[in-house]
Amino acid sequence: MSASLSRPRVGVWLVGARGSVATTVVTGCAAVTAGLHPPTGMVTEHPSFTGSGLPALSDLVFGGHDTLDCPLPKRAETLTAGGVLPPGVATAVGAELAAADREIRPGGPTSGDTRTEAELIVAFADDIRDFVHRNELARAVVVNVASTEPASQGPDAPLPASTLYALAALRAGCPYVNFTPSEGMHHTAAASEAERSGLPYAGRDGKTGQTLLRAVLGPMFAQRALTVRAWSGTNLLGGGDGAALADPAAAAAKNAGKERVLADTLGTVPEGEVHIDDVPALGDWKTAWDHIAFDGFLGTRMVLQTIWQGCDSALAAPLVLDLARLTARAHEAGVSGPLTDLGFFFKDPVGDGPAALGEQYAALVAFGERLRAPSSTARPPGDAAPGERS
Amino acid sequence: MSASLSRPRVGVWLVGARGSVATTVVTGCAAVTAGLHPPTGMVTEHPSFTGSGLPALSDLVFGGHDTLDCPLPKRAETLTAGGVLPPGVATAVGAELAAADREIRPGGPTSGDTRTEAELIVAFADDIRDFVHRNELARAVVVNVASTEPASQGPDAPLPASTLYALAALRAGCPYVNFTPSEGMHHTAAASEAERSGLPYAGRDGKTGQTLLRAVLGPMFAQRALTVRAWSGTNLLGGGDGAALADPAAAAAKNAGKERVLADTLGTVPEGEVHIDDVPALGDWKTAWDHIAFDGFLGTRMVLQTIWQGCDSALAAPLVLDLARLTARAHEAGVSGPLTDLGFFFKDPVGDGPAALGEQYAALVAFGERLRAPSSTARPPGDAAPGERS
Amino acid sequence: MSASLSRPRVGVWLVGARGSVATTVVTGCAAVTAGLHPPTGMVTEHPSFTGSGLPALSDLVFGGHDTLDCPLPKRAETLTAGGVLPPGVATAVGAELAAADREIRPGGPTSGDTRTEAELIVAFADDIRDFVHRNELARAVVVNVASTEPASQGPDAPLPASTLYALAALRAGCPYVNFTPSEGMHHTAAASEAERSGLPYAGRDGKTGQTLLRAVLGPMFAQRALTVRAWSGTNLLGGGDGAALADPAAAAAKNAGKERVLADTLGTVPEGEVHIDDVPALGDWKTAWDHIAFDGFLGTRMVLQTIWQGCDSALAAPLVLDLARLTARAHEAGVSGPLTDLGFFFKDPVGDGPAALGEQYAALVAFGERLRAPSSTARPPGDAAPGERS
Amino acid sequence: MSASLSRPRVGVWLVGARGSVATTVVTGCAAVTAGLHPPTGMVTEHPSFTGSGLPALSDLVFGGHDTLDCPLPKRAETLTAGGVLPPGVATAVGAELAAADREIRPGGPTSGDTRTEAELIVAFADDIRDFVHRNELARAVVVNVASTEPASQGPDAPLPASTLYALAALRAGCPYVNFTPSEGMHHTAAASEAERSGLPYAGRDGKTGQTLLRAVLGPMFAQRALTVRAWSGTNLLGGGDGAALADPAAAAAKNAGKERVLADTLGTVPEGEVHIDDVPALGDWKTAWDHIAFDGFLGTRMVLQTIWQGCDSALAAPLVLDLARLTARAHEAGVSGPLTDLGFFFKDPVGDGPAALGEQYAALVAFGERLRAPSSTARPPGDAAPGERS
Repeated sequence: MSASLSRPRVGVWLVGARGSVATTVVTGCAAVTAGLHPPTGMVTEHPSFTGSGLPALSDLVFGGHDTLDCPLPKRAETLTAGGVLPPGVATAVGAELAAADREIRPGGPTSGDTRTEAELIVAFADDIRDFVHRNELARAVVVNVASTEPASQGPDAPLPASTLYALAALRAGCPYVNFTPSEGMHHTAAASEAERSGLPYAGRDGKTGQTLLRAVLGPMFAQRALTVRAWSGTNLLGGGDGAALADPAAAAAKNAGKERVLADTLGTVPEGEVHIDDVPALGDWKTAWDHIAFDGFLGTRMVLQTIWQGCDSALAAPLVLDLARLTARAHEAGVSGPLTDLGFFFKDPVGDGPAALGEQYAALVAFGERLRAPSSTARPPGDAAPGERS
Repeated sequence: MSASLSRPRVGVWLVGARGSVATTVVTGCAAVTAGLHPPTGMVTEHPSFTGSGLPALSDLVFGGHDTLDCPLPKRAETLTAGGVLPPGVATAVGAELAAADREIRPGGPTSGDTRTEAELIVAFADDIRDFVHRNELARAVVVNVASTEPASQGPDAPLPASTLYALAALRAGCPYVNFTPSEGMHHTAAASEAERSGLPYAGRDGKTGQTLLRAVLGPMFAQRALTVRAWSGTNLLGGGDGAALADPAAAAAKNAGKERVLADTLGTVPEGEVHIDDVPALGDWKTAWDHIAFDGFLGTRMVLQTIWQGCDSALAAPLVLDLARLTARAHEAGVSGPLTDLGFFFKDPVGDGPAALGEQYAALVAFGERLRAPSSTARPPGDAAPGERS
Repeated sequence: MSASLSRPRVGVWLVGARGSVATTVVTGCAAVTAGLHPPTGMVTEHPSFTGSGLPALSDLVFGGHDTLDCPLPKRAETLTAGGVLPPGVATAVGAELAAADREIRPGGPTSGDTRTEAELIVAFADDIRDFVHRNELARAVVVNVASTEPASQGPDAPLPASTLYALAALRAGCPYVNFTPSEGMHHTAAASEAERSGLPYAGRDGKTGQTLLRAVLGPMFAQRALTVRAWSGTNLLGGGDGAALADPAAAAAKNAGKERVLADTLGTVPEGEVHIDDVPALGDWKTAWDHIAFDGFLGTRMVLQTIWQGCDSALAAPLVLDLARLTARAHEAGVSGPLTDLGFFFKDPVGDGPAALGEQYAALVAFGERLRAPSSTARPPGDAAPGERS
Repeated sequence: MSASLSRPRVGVWLVGARGSVATTVVTGCAAVTAGLHPPTGMVTEHPSFTGSGLPALSDLVFGGHDTLDCPLPKRAETLTAGGVLPPGVATAVGAELAAADREIRPGGPTSGDTRTEAELIVAFADDIRDFVHRNELARAVVVNVASTEPASQGPDAPLPASTLYALAALRAGCPYVNFTPSEGMHHTAAASEAERSGLPYAGRDGKTGQTLLRAVLGPMFAQRALTVRAWSGTNLLGGGDGAALADPAAAAAKNAGKERVLADTLGTVPEGEVHIDDVPALGDWKTAWDHIAFDGFLGTRMVLQTIWQGCDSALAAPLVLDLARLTARAHEAGVSGPLTDLGFFFKDPVGDGPAALGEQYAALVAFGERLRAPSSTARPPGDAAPGERS
C-alpha cells in the first residue's frame, strides 16, 4: 500500500449509473475539476480534510450498471431543462459524460433474464473488474444510487437487485456504499460475506433533506429538555424517486430511516406520520413540510414548522463524491468493516455511532484526521483496530 | 466553602421581578417543586447534572426589583388568562407568589428620581443584601429579566438601568446573569469592576426561539458546505417585549445577537434583515418566520423556511432557573469571571466559546462535570484557575 | 303559517349531541345570548340577514341523540381545559348545558341492539316529536354533527346510522342538515323519501378550514388564468375527528368533498393527494398545510403554500347555528327540497350552485332577501316554486 | 370610429421599456403569438372576452421610454439566465425584441437634463406621436411599468417623472395605464387634465402576489364573520424592484395599496406591518409571507399563514397585455375617464369599485360584455354615459 509518484486513479462504479443522481455526480465532478463551479455541498473540500490523502476529483473515473439505456449526455440535457443542472454545464463537460457513458454496463435482472442470482453476481463482478483493469485503477468504490426498492419480502424471496450488486462488489474486492434505503449489504445473505471480505462499507440512505433537518432539530429539543409530542411530515417529489416511493413498500423502507433519527435523538418515538407523495409536476425538486408539536415549561404547547425546498440530485451528488473519496481512502488505509464514522451522511447508518448531526460531524472530522496518519494507524475509534488487515 | 448539613438556601434576585418571565419563573419553580408539573424545559434536570451540587428548586428563594407595582398573584392571573400559565397553577402556588411579592423592592430610576447613579447603586445593593440576610441565604444570584433597553447612547450618556443593577450586584457580592440584550455588565463602566470583584457572571440575551434555531441550522449549512446567500427573518410578538422592541434602538440591540450567531456559525454574514414587530393581538406568543436562501451543488438554488410559534415566557423561565442554579453553584465552587461555558443559553455569550448549539451543549455538560468535583478543582476550561478565590 | 304574537321557539336536534361541536353549539348559543361574547363567526348576524325572519338565538332549544353518556357540562369542562372554550364560560352557562343535557336521548344502533332499521327510525322519530311537543316548539331542525362514518359499503350493506337519523327527521316532519361527510340524506334509500316529504334539507360536510381556503383560492387561480399543476394537502388533527378520519374509508368520504371544490373551481383536477392524520396531541386543533404548484406566463413555475391552524369545533359551531336558523326559517317559509343556496357552508353542497365562495355568499345573501318577503313568495332561485307546499 | 377591413394595429408604449416587466411583455407577446407557449396568466384570453373586440396579440406593436440603454435582446438573455424566461424563447423571438428595441426612446429627466417639465412633456408626447404615425397605428396605450418612485414630496416638489409621462400620454391623445404605485395620473397636476381630455385611464399598482391573495382572503374572513386581529406581512425580493422598494418612501407608496385592500374588504384596518426587503440573492423571484391572526367563535384564536413564491415579471407581464388590450378597446369604444371596472388588476384602483376579487372579476366580465356591443353603447356601469364622446 505505497503511494506511487504518479497519482493513482480511483474508480467510482455507480449502480443506477443513468439516474439523476449519477448524472449529476459525473457532470459536477467534471465541472468542479474544470473550475467551472466551486465545490459547494462537498464536505471533503473543507480544510479539515486537507492532508487526509483523499483522491483528487480529477483522479476519479466513472462507470456503472444500469437497466436503462438513455445516454448520459442526453440525461444531462434533460436535467438542464428541469433546472437541476445550470445552463451550459452539460455541454461544457460533454466529453467526460461521453467517457463515463462508455463505461456503463447493462444491469439486471431485467424481465426475461434467465440467469441465476449467482450468475448475475459473477457477471456484475466481472464488469467491475474489467473497468478497474481497463482503466488501470488503483481501486474502485461501488456506490448504489439506484431507485429505492420495495422493502424485502422475507427470507425466501429472491435476493433484491441491490444485494446482488453488493455481493458483486465484495467479489470484485471493492468497498461499497449504499446511498439508498434499499437492502444492499444489509441483507442477511450479505452480512457474513461482508465481514469475511475485510472490505470497508458504508450506508445507508443519504441524509439530504427532511432527515438532515431532523438530525439537528431532534438534538435541539432533547438538549433543551422540550417534550416533542408529535412530529409529522409530508414530502412532495416528482422525478423517478417520487414514482418509486409512491409504492408504499418502498416508502416504508425510507421512512424507517427517518424514524430512526427521531428515536435516536429524542430517546422516544413521538406521534406523527410521514407521507411521501409522487407529484410529477415538481420534477426533481422536493418539498418537505415538517410539523413538530412540543411542550414547554408547565405544559405550554408550541409548534415548529419547517419547509425544505431542495433539489434532491443536487443535494445527493456532492455527498456521493465525498463518500467515494472517503471510502476509497479508507480502503487504501486498510480500514475494514462498517464505516461507523460516516454516519454524518446517512439516515440509517451502519454501526453504533451518534445520531445528532453535530456529533456525527465531529466523528467524521476525527476520521479524516486518522486517515492523515500513515495508513497503518488508521482505525475505527475506540477500537484496537480489529478489522484492519494485517 | 464547606457544605452545611442542612442544605443552604439560595436567593434568586430578579431585576424586572413583576414581568412575565419573572412571574413564570416563580410560579413554575413552585409548581415543579410541588410536583404539579414535570420540569419540562429545564436543562439542569437532565441526569448529566445529577451530582453537580446544584441547589434544589425547593431551596430557591425569590425577590427582586421592579418599577411597576402590580402584585405577582395578579400578574399570574393575567398570564393564566393569556394561556401562558395553565389553569389552576397560579392559585395552587398562591402562597409562594405572595412570598416572592413581599421580597420585591422598587426599582429605578423612575421619572422624578433625583438620586445620583452612585446612590441608586448603593440603594439597590442594600436591597439585595437585606434580602440575603433576612432570609439567611448562602448566596443570591442577580438575574436581569427586565424589558430590553435601547442600545447605549455613547460614553457620555447616563448609565443604563441594567448597568446600575449589574454594579449593585457586584457591590452586594452577588454573581450576575443578564438574560436580556441590555448592556448590564457589558458596559465599559462595569467591565473592570466585574473583573476586580472575582465574581462569576453570565449573559447575554437568552436564546429562546429564532436564534436557538439559527444556532443549530447555521452549523448544519456550514458542515454540509452549503452556501447561505440570504437569511431573512420576521418576528411577531405582543406582550411587553413586543412594545419594547418596536423601538428600533432596542431592536438593534437584540438583532446584534441574532446576527452574531450567523456570523459565528456560517463564517460570513449573509444578506437579509430581521424585523421585530409589535403585534399586541398575539399577547405573550411569538411567531418567528425565517427564510434561508442557499446554494447547493453547481449553484442550484434552494430554500429552507422555519416557523416557530412559542410562548416566550414559557421558553425563558426554565432557562432562568437553570442559570440561577448553575451560577450559584459556580459561585460556591469558586469559579469567577465570565462563564463562557454557559454559551448554550445565550445569543451573545460572554467569552470565546463555540457558537454551534451542539458544541455549546457539550461545553455545558463538561462544566456540570467539573462542578461535581470538590469545589477547589472546579475551574474554567483550559485554565489554571486564574479567577478562583484563594 | 302565521307568526304568533309571542315568538315561537325553535328546536335544534343534534345528532351527536355530546360531541365537541354540539357542546360548543349549546355553550356558544347561551353565551352569545347572555351577552358574554360577540357572535364572531356567525354569518347570519350580519345586517344582510336582518329582517329575514330568522329565529333569535334566544329562541333556540337544544336536544339530540348520542350513543355516549358523558353529561354536557362535563364535556364543556373538558373543552375548556383543551382551550376550545374560554375559561369561565362553561360555568356561566351551566344551566343551559344542563337543560340541553336533559333533552338528549340514546342514539343507535349500539352493539347488541336487536332493533330493526325500521324500528330504530320510528324510535328516533318519536324522540324528536316528543322533544317538539314537550317544549311546545314551532318546529325543529335535525342537524347531524356526529363523527364521520366510513363510506358506504354498497347497496346490500345495512343503512348507515346517519341515514337512519335522516329518515327519522323526515318521519318527524323536520328539516334536516348534514354538517358531516356521512351519507345521511344522500343515501339512495333516503333520496326519494326526501322528495316526497316536501321538507327542506341541506348539506353536506361543513366547509371550515382547508376547503374554505380552497373555495377562494381555486377561483383566484382560475380567474387569473394561472395553471394549477398540483395541489397537495396534509391535515393534522386530534380529537374524535382525528381518530374517525384515520380510518381510510372515512377519510375517503371527506376527501371527495375537498376534491370536488378544486374540480368545480379550477375546471380540472390537478395532481396531488390529501392526507388526514390523527395526531391526538393536537386535541381539537387542526393544522392544514396546502402546497399549490402553478404555472405562470411562459410556464414559469411558482408555488403558494397555506397553513391553517384552527379549532374545528369553534369554526363549526357558529355555522351550525346559522344553518339551523336558515333551515328553520326556510321550512316556515314553505321552501322545500335541497337548499342549493346554502352551498356557502358546505364542501359538497346539494344541488347545482356555484363552487366559488364569493358567488356562494352572494347566493346566500339573495336567499336571505327572499326569506324577508311574506312567506308565500320565498322560493328557490330561478324556479316557479315547484317544491312549495300548497 | 369605424372598423377598417384590414385589422388596425395598436401600439403599446411602455414607460420603463427596458425593465424586467417590459422585456417579459414583449418576449411573451411574441412567443404566444408564435404558438411557442399557451397564454397562461392572460385573463383576456378567456372565452368570456371573445367577441369583445380586443386587439389580437399579433396586432400589438411595442415601443417606449427608458433612461437605461441596455438592448432588449440582452435584457432578455439576462432574464433567461435568471429563470424568468424559459430557455430558448428569447432567441426564438429575437427579431421582435430587436424591433421593439428600435422603438425605445430616451426617457427622463436624467441628471444634467436642463429641460423644463413642460419641455419634457412635449418631447415625450412627440416620441409617442411619432411612434403612432411611423407605425400607422390606430391608437397607442401608454403603460407605466417603470421602477416605483418615492412617494410625492408635497405640492412644491417637482413633478415626479411618472406624472410627466402621464401628461405626455394625454397630450398625445393616448389612454394611460399605471401598473406601478407611482403617482402618474393621480398627481393633482394631472387629475383635471385627465378629465378634460376625455381619455380613459386605469391604475394603479398591479396586484400580482401578496395583495392578490389579500383580495380573496379578506372577503373570506368578512363573509365568515371571523374577526381579523392582526395581518402582518414580509416580502423578500431582489431585482430592480427590491432595490427600489428598499427606499422607505417608495415602500410607503406600495404599502398604501396593500393596506387599502384590507381596509376595504375587512371594513377595518387590523394590527400588523408590511415589510419589503431587498434580497438581491432572490433575483426576480419574490417570496411573500403573510400571518393572519383571527378570532373565531367565543374568541378562540386561530392563525392562517400564506407563503407566495412567484416571479414578479412573469406575473405582471400577462396582466400588462390584458390591460393594454382592454384599454385600447375602451378607447376605441369611446369610454372615457377612470376605468373603474378594471379594479381586478390593481391594488389601489381608480374609482369606487368593489375590493373583493370575485366581485372585481364579475365587473371585469361585465365590462367585456359591454365592449361587445356596438361601440356607442359601451359605458360605465350605472351611469348615463357621462364621459362618452359625442
